[in-house]
Amino acid sequence: MAPIKDNLSAVLYGINDMRLEQRPIPVPKDNQVLLQMEVVGICGSDVHYLTTGCCGPFVVKEPMVIGHEASGTVVEVGKNVKNLKPGDRVAIEPGVPCRYCTYCKTGKYHLCKDLFFCATPPDDGNLSRYYVHDADFCWKLPSNMSLEEGAIMEPLSVGVHACKRAGIKVGDVCLIAGAGPIGLVTLLSAKAMGASKIVITDIMDVKLNMAKQLGADHALKIDRNMTEEQIVKKVHELLGEEPNVTFDCTGIESSVRICVAAAGLAGVVVLVGMGKVEMTLPLGSALIREVDVRGTFRYVNDYPTSIELVSTGRINVKPLITHHFTLEESVKAFEVAKTQEGNPIKILIHANPNWKRS
Amino acid sequence: MAPIKDNLSAVLYGINDMRLEQRPIPVPKDNQVLLQMEVVGICGSDVHYLTTGCCGPFVVKEPMVIGHEASGTVVEVGKNVKNLKPGDRVAIEPGVPCRYCTYCKTGKYHLCKDLFFCATPPDDGNLSRYYVHDADFCWKLPSNMSLEEGAIMEPLSVGVHACKRAGIKVGDVCLIAGAGPIGLVTLLSAKAMGASKIVITDIMDVKLNMAKQLGADHALKIDRNMTEEQIVKKVHELLGEEPNVTFDCTGIESSVRICVAAAGLAGVVVLVGMGKVEMTLPLGSALIREVDVRGTFRYVNDYPTSIELVSTGRINVKPLITHHFTLEESVKAFEVAKTQEGNPIKILIHANPNWKRS
Amino acid sequence: MAPIKDNLSAVLYGINDMRLEQRPIPVPKDNQVLLQMEVVGICGSDVHYLTTGCCGPFVVKEPMVIGHEASGTVVEVGKNVKNLKPGDRVAIEPGVPCRYCTYCKTGKYHLCKDLFFCATPPDDGNLSRYYVHDADFCWKLPSNMSLEEGAIMEPLSVGVHACKRAGIKVGDVCLIAGAGPIGLVTLLSAKAMGASKIVITDIMDVKLNMAKQLGADHALKIDRNMTEEQIVKKVHELLGEEPNVTFDCTGIESSVRICVAAAGLAGVVVLVGMGKVEMTLPLGSALIREVDVRGTFRYVNDYPTSIELVSTGRINVKPLITHHFTLEESVKAFEVAKTQEGNPIKILIHANPNWKRS
Amino acid sequence: MAPIKDNLSAVLYGINDMRLEQRPIPVPKDNQVLLQMEVVGICGSDVHYLTTGCCGPFVVKEPMVIGHEASGTVVEVGKNVKNLKPGDRVAIEPGVPCRYCTYCKTGKYHLCKDLFFCATPPDDGNLSRYYVHDADFCWKLPSNMSLEEGAIMEPLSVGVHACKRAGIKVGDVCLIAGAGPIGLVTLLSAKAMGASKIVITDIMDVKLNMAKQLGADHALKIDRNMTEEQIVKKVHELLGEEPNVTFDCTGIESSVRICVAAAGLAGVVVLVGMGKVEMTLPLGSALIREVDVRGTFRYVNDYPTSIELVSTGRINVKPLITHHFTLEESVKAFEVAKTQEGNPIKILIHANPNWKRS
Repeated sequence: MAPIKDNLSAVLYGINDMRLEQRPIPVPKDNQVLLQMEVVGICGSDVHYLTTGCCGPFVVKEPMVIGHEASGTVVEVGKNVKNLKPGDRVAIEPGVPCRYCTYCKTGKYHLCKDLFFCATPPDDGNLSRYYVHDADFCWKLPSNMSLEEGAIMEPLSVGVHACKRAGIKVGDVCLIAGAGPIGLVTLLSAKAMGASKIVITDIMDVKLNMAKQLGADHALKIDRNMTEEQIVKKVHELLGEEPNVTFDCTGIESSVRICVAAAGLAGVVVLVGMGKVEMTLPLGSALIREVDVRGTFRYVNDYPTSIELVSTGRINVKPLITHHFTLEESVKAFEVAKTQEGNPIKILIHANPNWKRS
Repeated sequence: MAPIKDNLSAVLYGINDMRLEQRPIPVPKDNQVLLQMEVVGICGSDVHYLTTGCCGPFVVKEPMVIGHEASGTVVEVGKNVKNLKPGDRVAIEPGVPCRYCTYCKTGKYHLCKDLFFCATPPDDGNLSRYYVHDADFCWKLPSNMSLEEGAIMEPLSVGVHACKRAGIKVGDVCLIAGAGPIGLVTLLSAKAMGASKIVITDIMDVKLNMAKQLGADHALKIDRNMTEEQIVKKVHELLGEEPNVTFDCTGIESSVRICVAAAGLAGVVVLVGMGKVEMTLPLGSALIREVDVRGTFRYVNDYPTSIELVSTGRINVKPLITHHFTLEESVKAFEVAKTQEGNPIKILIHANPNWKRS
Repeated sequence: MAPIKDNLSAVLYGINDMRLEQRPIPVPKDNQVLLQMEVVGICGSDVHYLTTGCCGPFVVKEPMVIGHEASGTVVEVGKNVKNLKPGDRVAIEPGVPCRYCTYCKTGKYHLCKDLFFCATPPDDGNLSRYYVHDADFCWKLPSNMSLEEGAIMEPLSVGVHACKRAGIKVGDVCLIAGAGPIGLVTLLSAKAMGASKIVITDIMDVKLNMAKQLGADHALKIDRNMTEEQIVKKVHELLGEEPNVTFDCTGIESSVRICVAAAGLAGVVVLVGMGKVEMTLPLGSALIREVDVRGTFRYVNDYPTSIELVSTGRINVKPLITHHFTLEESVKAFEVAKTQEGNPIKILIHANPNWKRS
Repeated sequence: MAPIKDNLSAVLYGINDMRLEQRPIPVPKDNQVLLQMEVVGICGSDVHYLTTGCCGPFVVKEPMVIGHEASGTVVEVGKNVKNLKPGDRVAIEPGVPCRYCTYCKTGKYHLCKDLFFCATPPDDGNLSRYYVHDADFCWKLPSNMSLEEGAIMEPLSVGVHACKRAGIKVGDVCLIAGAGPIGLVTLLSAKAMGASKIVITDIMDVKLNMAKQLGADHALKIDRNMTEEQIVKKVHELLGEEPNVTFDCTGIESSVRICVAAAGLAGVVVLVGMGKVEMTLPLGSALIREVDVRGTFRYVNDYPTSIELVSTGRINVKPLITHHFTLEESVKAFEVAKTQEGNPIKILIHANPNWKRS
């Protein structure tokens, strides 16, 4: 193999200060692989770091490579790696846990307190030419899946995990609040797992139209003049019954309130969107309906499911991909993500210098 | 059988207007039994009806017989009754569902929308000499259980149900907020189902002392000067770790907040106490810990468990019984319940005229 | 309504002795409906009763109306019936439980010991012009479903129930042994609930072809010269991995053995087909793989799911329907069911005299 | 620390050929600890290796240190170890998984195909003076637990795991077939998790007496003249109902048959004892009762539960300990285990040279 010299990386130096710079090519450990990075999507949290320097409790203190929704091609494997070989195309699950704690041993490694997570300070992300990662968190893509789809496995896994937390099954009737990227992957996942009727809400027509195109049975535009009661009533009317599962994909209190109020007897409310810490909710009346309110955090053991759903054709993520940039154009790509000009859903950055705009 | 003539009943006519009056002796239908009422406990909701005329969404519009925590002796059985015979002593599960709806068919009959429930308007309760009830909701007491214990099966089932909703199992570490009757039955149930460490909180020493006597590992007195953070920290210190299950048995927002804030990763918060509809809670941070908040409503299929727990000696409910009155003394009994004079936990009214104060 | 006079019924008098005779028109009780019978499918158990006079522990001692896979149209409703009105088209769930026992109260009414079940001695079935049934076990068909599909809801519910017992979810890898009607409905259900790869086995090409048409990923023809080991190896090869769920839909020991031997680590084996009581199985090696072997009996709370799956287009049952007869032709219909001439899958008998062969 | 020179180890060279020899003192890796071995129990599988050279599919090909039911004291810790320090007393969970496969990530590490397991060929056990082990599989003993109890955590975890697989909860009614060590730990675990009534069977009075002393409600002596039907009937009579959970702790076909036949509707049969691969069982009739037959393999995430149960006093394992030997007496200890002279339950070998017979 010819020596690799270029490891251009998108590094966040401070608020609205992202720079492209060369970083050393990392060397994989025995259980790791060196990856030629291929496609990296931009997530809302990435934009949050760029514009505010933090996201929830995490604060960027040192320059940090951005990027965590990614796919790559294996270039080199550590000596203990058996599941991959050079040339394999993979979706990269960005969180690698300690493997030793109670959470790791009980199938909840996403709650591990020593989790490495791409582009969550102080851990570097992978919007760069090369990157090393533990081989068992690199998921080989089937031949019928593209590297672009591979990068989408990250947000899709958020939707899949939300639906697993909800226990979505055949015949479920759902409300999804919010038709942004997370609302849409939740919609796709819920449909694929058997939900029979879904109403999705948003304040923007363009988002609702995409949701309908992706399979929402009903799209309800929220108008600021509508009362909470009116919205709940409308949700029930559209569905013809009370939803047994509601998902908040906004993190906004008014939306969470609708999710709690609209859920039927023994219903489940899943909180997918992260928002403010304090929320005032009508829990007193939900309590006597034996409603469950469940938090969700990222994903765990969900990448294989996501890949399966796409490779078997149950889910089509291609309509989510709206914009493409090269690694060199990263600053511009983030500018679009910030301004939302052109109503982007998923903006993909191509880190492979051989990528050609088609 | 000599003809029965006396059916003295405690009837709620309006706010603070309870009257003892004769009511007709009811006749059991084919699947019902006629019961000589024996012991009826006073519940917080009964007092609420007496002092305010309502409880949550339920409003007393017509005179209503009060009482729903009860035991009785079978006097007569309908022709289809096979599980009981005259002379059997039973604990009376006060809710009888429609038996036809989805909730009834799926093991959630407590959520049935056509539920008859003793002393919930417009349904009469059973603080009277005689009362008819569906035979399959009368649970035969084993010979080693008293009629007083039989009456306590109702509140105990609330605790048992809360613990089932929490999924309490061996090794669980719990916080119980509130050491009133519901906090105490939850404590007894959690211990019996395997909880290894329990801290209980209250603002009154007398209640905390009873909780410790009943098996609480730690009792934490809440002082109004303590901040939320201090209370949570203290809970964690006493337990030596974060609780994986917390129960709010108060319905008070400040307590529910502690329950949400103190719950560990992947923890469960069970809302047992009913309180105000709107609550402001730190759900944003609970979400990323994947905490579940679960409402509970009464009980379902829990009476057999409650009886089993008492008859096998795993739970001793006798310390909960603090006061005794005759049916004729009902107004006085409710007065004690209202004023809480003498720190009553469970006040029992004896409806059988042959009862003798021991 | 003009008086109804014709209640022609197919009555089993003894082995190979089925007679068409007039029976009185039944009168619905308060919670029942009178149904004009529409379509009645023939089940393997019906044929078993006809040819042997018994099925498992059940023995026909008195003349019994046959038929239990049925749809009908509501003609008259009892006074307490709220969910249906005359003219409604319904799928008839043939088992009606006691509503009072532990099983009924805990969501397992199919295990009720006092279950009425159509055409299970001594209970009459519904291959007749008119029939009464409890209204809550008559499931209204959506307007986009036919009465023929309505009759298929019974066998489909067997498949749905088997998949629920298996806990089928997105990404599951399955083996289904047997491509008869029960194997096919299990296949349809497993696919609809998210199974990603399914291999189905049978000894007849015609059945395997139908299975492939209905969505089986792989069809494996069992040849009597193959050893058990060879079959298991072939199953693993076709799937590319060990199945995590296997279904026996034959009741034949050699098939059940394959299902047990082929199941992977922590796998689930579901026994759907009824067969002989005693079976010799390689359970010792399954034990250390922590395999579960789960029995299934009919269905419970599955009709709504089945209807949902068909009405939303997730399942298409029409290819299962291969033969049509009128009620008057019942004897001939059963003859075809016995001889399997023309490789019938589902034979439907039309009980409505107005039905026209299309 | 003075240099350690003595690492006397009990090594299995072949059938009935166990030798005591010096082995090198191992050096802990970064995530490991060096343990002074304290107490090592003898398991049935150890005896099986000694007398036959194999156990199930595992064959001793090279000399192997025996022993896997053990406790030790930490002597030295690897540089990454945080949960332990020198002087800590620990129970040693003998299986250490790969940490990278699907089973490891989904909370089923006991099914990991690359599991290291003490004294399972080719892996050495720990009946020696010193031994190294991954620190996270060494469970610190609370101060109120002895090193002897620590060694018993291994068999107890088998019982705990069996009960978790069964889903034992308050009120369960159980049959346990076999009152050997595994039957007894299953009994202790089931009682501690809430089983209300347990009947245990065996062919030896001495074992049944111990079972009764440990909490069995009923002990049924199996007499070879009793038919299967008579035994099942007797089990039902003693319990007053059908058990909803049955455990086979023998591995013997006739016992497994009783467990399957006696289980009630929707009951669970757990196979704990390992026996022959092929078993002829009355599964046909169990199927229509929707019985589950579940295999169990060792334990997973169960040591913390076992320690909790003993340290909180819910389980007392001391009566199980019947014999004591020094490491030098290992051959003699195994002789007693082989002959069962003196009806041993648990034979403990003390590996610490400072141990004094009390």
